[in-house]
Amino acid sequence: MVRVALDAMGGDHGAAAAVEGAAALSREERPVRVLLVGDSAVIYELLDEFPHDPAWLQVVHAEGCVAMDHKPRAALDAMPDCSINVASRLVAAGDADALVSAGHTGATILAASRHFERIPGIRRAALAAVYPTEQRHGPRGDPFALMLDVGATLNAEPEDLVGFAVMGSAYARIISDNTSPRVALLSNGTEANKGTPAIVEAHRRLRELGTIDFHGNVEGLDIPKGTVDVVVCEGFLGNVVLKMLEGVSEVVADLVKDSMDRKIQWRLGIAMLAKGLKQLRTLTDWKQYGGAPLLGFDKVVIKAHGRSNARAIRNAIKVAAKAVDRDLAGQIARGMAPLQGG
Amino acid sequence: MVRVALDAMGGDHGAAAAVEGAAALSREERPVRVLLVGDSAVIYELLDEFPHDPAWLQVVHAEGCVAMDHKPRAALDAMPDCSINVASRLVAAGDADALVSAGHTGATILAASRHFERIPGIRRAALAAVYPTEQRHGPRGDPFALMLDVGATLNAEPEDLVGFAVMGSAYARIISDNTSPRVALLSNGTEANKGTPAIVEAHRRLRELGTIDFHGNVEGLDIPKGTVDVVVCEGFLGNVVLKMLEGVSEVVADLVKDSMDRKIQWRLGIAMLAKGLKQLRTLTDWKQYGGAPLLGFDKVVIKAHGRSNARAIRNAIKVAAKAVDRDLAGQIARGMAPLQGG
Repeated sequence: MVRVALDAMGGDHGAAAAVEGAAALSREERPVRVLLVGDSAVIYELLDEFPHDPAWLQVVHAEGCVAMDHKPRAALDAMPDCSINVASRLVAAGDADALVSAGHTGATILAASRHFERIPGIRRAALAAVYPTEQRHGPRGDPFALMLDVGATLNAEPEDLVGFAVMGSAYARIISDNTSPRVALLSNGTEANKGTPAIVEAHRRLRELGTIDFHGNVEGLDIPKGTVDVVVCEGFLGNVVLKMLEGVSEVVADLVKDSMDRKIQWRLGIAMLAKGLKQLRTLTDWKQYGGAPLLGFDKVVIKAHGRSNARAIRNAIKVAAKAVDRDLAGQIARGMAPLQGG
Repeated sequence: MVRVALDAMGGDHGAAAAVEGAAALSREERPVRVLLVGDSAVIYELLDEFPHDPAWLQVVHAEGCVAMDHKPRAALDAMPDCSINVASRLVAAGDADALVSAGHTGATILAASRHFERIPGIRRAALAAVYPTEQRHGPRGDPFALMLDVGATLNAEPEDLVGFAVMGSAYARIISDNTSPRVALLSNGTEANKGTPAIVEAHRRLRELGTIDFHGNVEGLDIPKGTVDVVVCEGFLGNVVLKMLEGVSEVVADLVKDSMDRKIQWRLGIAMLAKGLKQLRTLTDWKQYGGAPLLGFDKVVIKAHGRSNARAIRNAIKVAAKAVDRDLAGQIARGMAPLQGG
């Protein structure tokens, strides 16, 4: 039985979204045991509001919470018993199997790196994000691909990019039931000699690795098309690209909204186009689904988007449970095995 | 009277688009003198097809042309009298004032760097691209912003990023009649300490420069929104970002096309939405307009997109003439002056 420690205080919607999401999940057919970590008075009060099955929920008190404008290091030091610290300790001690938080991204990464061990062979953790694509992926035809690193660190050495590729492949296998996800390096050309020296060297090593389906390099235009299932890049580039996708989706949403507001005949047009536009709208909503896994640690960590509502929190908990069930850390370790010498 | 040397052989549409574009321009109210450089037999034959005013056109023979799959260095060495070499020599010798080519990008950059001088203070040339944005720019409300470098080189040192900022500002002033374009560095956060060491240092220097309107850092989501008029980044990043924009526009075009093909009622919907979709379609067409300036040389160089049709070629020639008229190189030199010591 998987137990998930949920930082119930982070996120733009505060404890309400976290408690509502966990409460809803507790009444589903296949619930997950959730430890709600945060201000217990606030959490109990919210639990009174939302129907739930108490057998699946446990409240663990914590003092304080890292706010979005806090400096992570200073905040974690100043508040040793804040929600993300307490939740991380529960996981480190084996009282829970995975950590989920919609709170401060930097604080979540720092807490994880302080409390958890790195998987052997992995020097640097990576934050991965699912994003919408034109092409579909895996046996279920998911309209999403995975990109990493999207901002856990700035730069990446060749060995880091190799690690990211292995971690992304393992995560895509688990989440999309895709037995052999195609993985590629993001570069400025498809040829093996294109890109920064780190990319060229990572390309060479991935060609030889043998534990993942390495597709070579892809270019910028392959990102929205979804030519591969997993796109690997350094954190600075991934951050810019991901935020740009968010920007594009907001622009598209604005244009559609503009049309809807303006004229009744346009509204008719929109209605007629409903199916086509649904695909465009997926772009605007995708941040609500699932969450971004922080990969590289011996424990499962899911960073839900700050804007997560109850449904997104519930999805993030389910994703975390699935990753524990299918032994994400073990799969990554096996993917790295050829590089571990012997 | 500005004279433009046009490599008439490059581009996906070959000499036809180049000659048709120059021919159409020769009959306009404000023509530009164009030297059509390439296989003279082919060019004369095409001139018979397209109505033109011979007073504004001159044919200069060249032997051979760099194909898209050629290696630039080897091709330029093997064909000393190929069209891009001959056109560059005409400009270097003062027989023409600007170079326009829709041919091989790498060959154009290499030919320029072999034949032209760098502007004092500029260590590295940059390829700039206009791209569509949600917000409008300049006194004419252009729905485009400028980004550079989009691929002339991979990496950029702080002094290169400073040079790109000055060059982008000068070009935007000339092309958009924008007296004070807002220029920003692309980074993973808006704070001055965000980004790679090169970005942080360039930020510090640009704050002190005083010759351009430096807006600080912007993030990925500011690219499609168009928060600033000029986005500055290293070539690797700019290449990925620009190709991603092309990819997004192709995906949008595919979705719209899908809708149009499928059902008559969808076609009605599309017709009703014509105005709103026109904005989306701008995305798919923007590569056809103008061209990408190669900035940093004492001569004006405009790289038209490989897919350019006659209209795009004509626009690229006009842009080149405008940049010569308004002394692009001089404006860049003045922007760099505070860094030139004394």
